[in-house]
Amino acid sequence: MNMKNYQNIVIGAGSGGLTVASGLANLGKQVLLVEASHVGGDCTNVGCVPSKTLIHLAKHFHPGMDANKVLAEVTRKRNWLRDKETEEMQHHPNIDFVQGYAKFVSANEIEVTGPDESVQHFNADRFFIATGARPRIVEVPGLAAEQILTNESIFDLTRLPHHLAIIGAGIIAIELAFAFRKLGAKVTLISLDERVLPRYPLEVSQAIQPELEKRGIRVHFQATSDHYEEDTRTLFARRHDEVFPIEDVDQVLLAIGRVRNIDHLDLEKAGVDFDRRGIKIDGFGRTNVKGIYAIGDVTPTSAFTHSANAQGRRVVQKVLYPFLPASKKEPLYPTSTFSDPEIATVGMTRHQIEEKFHPHLTLSLRIDLKEIDRGYTDDVEHGFILLDVMRLTGRILGATIVAPQASEMISLFTLAITRRVSMYKLYRQVYPYPTFSSAIQKISDAFMRETLPHIMREFKTYLRYRIFG
Amino acid sequence: MNMKNYQNIVIGAGSGGLTVASGLANLGKQVLLVEASHVGGDCTNVGCVPSKTLIHLAKHFHPGMDANKVLAEVTRKRNWLRDKETEEMQHHPNIDFVQGYAKFVSANEIEVTGPDESVQHFNADRFFIATGARPRIVEVPGLAAEQILTNESIFDLTRLPHHLAIIGAGIIAIELAFAFRKLGAKVTLISLDERVLPRYPLEVSQAIQPELEKRGIRVHFQATSDHYEEDTRTLFARRHDEVFPIEDVDQVLLAIGRVRNIDHLDLEKAGVDFDRRGIKIDGFGRTNVKGIYAIGDVTPTSAFTHSANAQGRRVVQKVLYPFLPASKKEPLYPTSTFSDPEIATVGMTRHQIEEKFHPHLTLSLRIDLKEIDRGYTDDVEHGFILLDVMRLTGRILGATIVAPQASEMISLFTLAITRRVSMYKLYRQVYPYPTFSSAIQKISDAFMRETLPHIMREFKTYLRYRIFG
Repeated sequence: MNMKNYQNIVIGAGSGGLTVASGLANLGKQVLLVEASHVGGDCTNVGCVPSKTLIHLAKHFHPGMDANKVLAEVTRKRNWLRDKETEEMQHHPNIDFVQGYAKFVSANEIEVTGPDESVQHFNADRFFIATGARPRIVEVPGLAAEQILTNESIFDLTRLPHHLAIIGAGIIAIELAFAFRKLGAKVTLISLDERVLPRYPLEVSQAIQPELEKRGIRVHFQATSDHYEEDTRTLFARRHDEVFPIEDVDQVLLAIGRVRNIDHLDLEKAGVDFDRRGIKIDGFGRTNVKGIYAIGDVTPTSAFTHSANAQGRRVVQKVLYPFLPASKKEPLYPTSTFSDPEIATVGMTRHQIEEKFHPHLTLSLRIDLKEIDRGYTDDVEHGFILLDVMRLTGRILGATIVAPQASEMISLFTLAITRRVSMYKLYRQVYPYPTFSSAIQKISDAFMRETLPHIMREFKTYLRYRIFG
Repeated sequence: MNMKNYQNIVIGAGSGGLTVASGLANLGKQVLLVEASHVGGDCTNVGCVPSKTLIHLAKHFHPGMDANKVLAEVTRKRNWLRDKETEEMQHHPNIDFVQGYAKFVSANEIEVTGPDESVQHFNADRFFIATGARPRIVEVPGLAAEQILTNESIFDLTRLPHHLAIIGAGIIAIELAFAFRKLGAKVTLISLDERVLPRYPLEVSQAIQPELEKRGIRVHFQATSDHYEEDTRTLFARRHDEVFPIEDVDQVLLAIGRVRNIDHLDLEKAGVDFDRRGIKIDGFGRTNVKGIYAIGDVTPTSAFTHSANAQGRRVVQKVLYPFLPASKKEPLYPTSTFSDPEIATVGMTRHQIEEKFHPHLTLSLRIDLKEIDRGYTDDVEHGFILLDVMRLTGRILGATIVAPQASEMISLFTLAITRRVSMYKLYRQVYPYPTFSSAIQKISDAFMRETLPHIMREFKTYLRYRIFG
């Protein structure tokens, strides 16, 4: 049997896999990179890159422009970047690239089945599993295959849907709802939950919901798709026992969560532990099997490109410099959603704060952007900055921002939380006027007003619940 | 003679004056507020507020919309905010408001001449001079008064100029050039300098210049206005001995710098020191005369609303709590310019760095945004992040950002420089993908590549020029 040996095999050429492959290869290591589909993974092909191109173009779209040209441009830009990344990987002197599906034969051997059904075997000292995730699919009886979209097919559309029904109300659903609405499509969301973006704090849903309504995007809550009637182009949705029609729907986008790409890997043969939430790893991407690592969406870590990248960087560092000191604590992974306005969060969630601290110890501070001058000039109705902080010390525990540029504003808080910069320090900082960031000035004023006049009370509370608590 | 006594008199109800007046009044002090024109000063009336409203509306302007309606909306929003601020000041229980021009009679007395020529006298323990600045005017022979605009009159326009000539290429000139061009006006700039925005680093001018050209905004350098010919609607400009025509100009905006409002104050009678650059103050706004303070544009401090606010806050703190410890060092004042893309800077300028450190000690790191994914998806051609850092230690000395959201991105660097967060710490931070801020990841990678493989060289350089230098 033809068997090739490698030091490192990376399975999956998405954000996480590419970070590890190029990280190792750029430092002189030989790498075999196995990819079943396109180089670039979700991010380049069916995620961030085409969606942000679409969102950017939709922002500048106006009546009289051709929405189909926008869709064509999204596909063109995506393909250009994909080709570039594929070329880079195929021509990297230290990377061998093979197309196909990988599965484990043992803890140090994989079998790769190519597009032509040819089978190759490889073994290696180290494997890096970065196979990512794929959209979860449900059947909608009566709906033709070409009418069902997921994030994997929507960026290949050449014609703007007349009425796009979106099943789900999570990040992908909301980002695409805003973008397709701006291009002129009618958009309706159908969600099993009681609010949009249910994984974000309630305040976020309360800010985004009216922004959807303002644009004429209807959301049906506690409902799901039932069946489609082709003659009348009607999608029937179901809420409990009630079935109701959504009229004139021509395309349906499924955005109801993601399934980790684990099943075809035959992980059992390598003895790698996993469960419903993904392949189990420690803070350096190590699985229970020595020499087998996992990174990105296939693990339980936050499912963002930047977290896959950051994990990849940590894994490369640990593999190449195992004796260098490295913080066991993973860095903070911010979240960001490119809705309009954008959403970004970092730090502890409410739930984590409530688990860790007595409620008397912490303080929620919120400034609505419409109360500051930039919110007024820019007509921002529903944005805010919300900070959860420790009383007395002013330590920042978590930050939630809903603002036109939230994804750029959040990194200040990532730094503040990581470096333990308190509200007292943020209070002394000067923020350019008139920016949305200048709300940080107001929010630190609010902290000072809550703290300084009641300093003895705050001190006693802190002693009681934090020191002796 | 009718003489009223006050504890505190604030002269000027702009950003700086309002901060002091409401700061003192909210803490129970009696304040007389004197204003010659409108409450809100430049920022509310003829600066940030109307210009950012205009910039925001211009961003969303497209063919088929009515530019004159945009101008009317700018005026409406400005007036609403002005009325609100005026009302707040006039009805504040601790603030007496008087309309008129103030001048000093002595170090503890002023005379105020009202709009009806009535004269009142006031004395006080403390005076806060916040009279700001006004646009510098040059005459353009042949041009009718109503065709000459400054930032004080341009937001009262009811009709979009056909061809707006702007004399100057500083912040006000550039912000308004982009905005009026987007509304459909033809825009031409005439500048005595050799590049746009000459007070910013050269790299900034090099990024903004092609963005102006891309939009069809022509800049005539090393030139100034000569005269105007009404019959042919031609503005003649002069470069050295050559006079050349700029055709079909109907309005001319003067944006050639600002003059501090000092001359009418009779500062000599109070014995207050000043020069061409403004009233001389220390880090707490104190002039050479005990009890007389100055803040904002009338001083040599950076001429931004946020610096006037910050100065005002420091002054209030020092006046009310003189024994509280307060850093003598003023906070960092960032700059921001709302061009397209935006510009923001913070920290030491190149010039200050060159004066303070040997050139071998510092490192300039630059990442162009077109090299990162968000720059690609959003078609950003000329943005960048540029950091000047100390070799070896990675201490950040100055940051310059040209990016669509530079004014929101800069506060991360204000914090990093103030708290001495090094490039090593920024390297470990995770930035949301795909944001412009993720360029910080790339720039810290570049620092690591420059430093780690040459650590002994960097260490020797540091010892030689920093420790023993």
